[in-house]
Amino acid sequence: MNKKQQVILEVDQHVRSIPDFPKPGVLFKDIVPVFEHIDYCQKVIDVMLDELKENKIEFNKIVCPEARGFLFGVPLGLATKTGVVLARKANKLPLPGTKISYELEYGIEALEISKDSIQPGDKVLIVDDLLATGGSAKALGQIIELNKAEVSGVLFYLELTPLKGREALSKYKVLSIVPIET
Amino acid sequence: MNKKQQVILEVDQHVRSIPDFPKPGVLFKDIVPVFEHIDYCQKVIDVMLDELKENKIEFNKIVCPEARGFLFGVPLGLATKTGVVLARKANKLPLPGTKISYELEYGIEALEISKDSIQPGDKVLIVDDLLATGGSAKALGQIIELNKAEVSGVLFYLELTPLKGREALSKYKVLSIVPIET
Repeated sequence: MNKKQQVILEVDQHVRSIPDFPKPGVLFKDIVPVFEHIDYCQKVIDVMLDELKENKIEFNKIVCPEARGFLFGVPLGLATKTGVVLARKANKLPLPGTKISYELEYGIEALEISKDSIQPGDKVLIVDDLLATGGSAKALGQIIELNKAEVSGVLFYLELTPLKGREALSKYKVLSIVPIET
Repeated sequence: MNKKQQVILEVDQHVRSIPDFPKPGVLFKDIVPVFEHIDYCQKVIDVMLDELKENKIEFNKIVCPEARGFLFGVPLGLATKTGVVLARKANKLPLPGTKISYELEYGIEALEISKDSIQPGDKVLIVDDLLATGGSAKALGQIIELNKAEVSGVLFYLELTPLKGREALSKYKVLSIVPIET
């Protein structure tokens, strides 16, 4: 069994599924234990690196959204020696940036990237923990394109396949490590 | 010049100081560029690892608070093969945990750690980006002690020395990489 198969097979030992959180009808995936089980966490990072290589994703910047995107984005940046741009929630950045609002499974959210963090011509990898409806990654893609840069790929640890986020991101190369059917 | 001296000397190239954010009188330290400059980021992590070793801090768990604590906590966990416990802001955790409120330089905040994440007897290293008044680290210390575990050290990248957070944390071993006097 290869490392990716192990990561998929062991997912239920490291991700808690909680029904009806934060609102009725949503099955919340709690990834807190992944980081407590650091050997598994390292395996996830290793598999992400393998996937990027196998799919020939070329990038000179990583963008990851607050807060859970930070958890994978920074380790991937350190491992690939690539600068990591932190996309923050509304009103967290002290200087003007590019901001886009989007719909979540529950409510409206906004993400913002500092001015000058993305340069024209950058090839950007978007990294986040979970692909649900794809709203936050789509918003990040818009911010990147408004700054005249290119999205070279979008990488997730988990993908909730029934929510069809992959369709919302169909213009991008989308990679996920663990598909979740329910 | 050793690596720690370099990290201190170069801080102004990687951390932006913004006056009166998020409220008048607060000099906000924006660490977003640290992660965009990944070589510098790696140096900060390396120096943190050196400091932990030199100060003989023994720990079997790392606790880091949402969101900026995640940025240093996870890389340190991966580098030391230590499980990382994510302390989340109020109402982010789907299951009951231990929650403590504390005062910020601006307003009231709460941090919560999942039940079972901290076990009696654990030796815990608290990691965060910035020591200001020490409120959040003190709250995390209380949560750890309520769970009958021990704080073996508290580690920050930046320390705003005039705010005397070190005094608020005087019962702990406090390490910081870059002291900031203004």
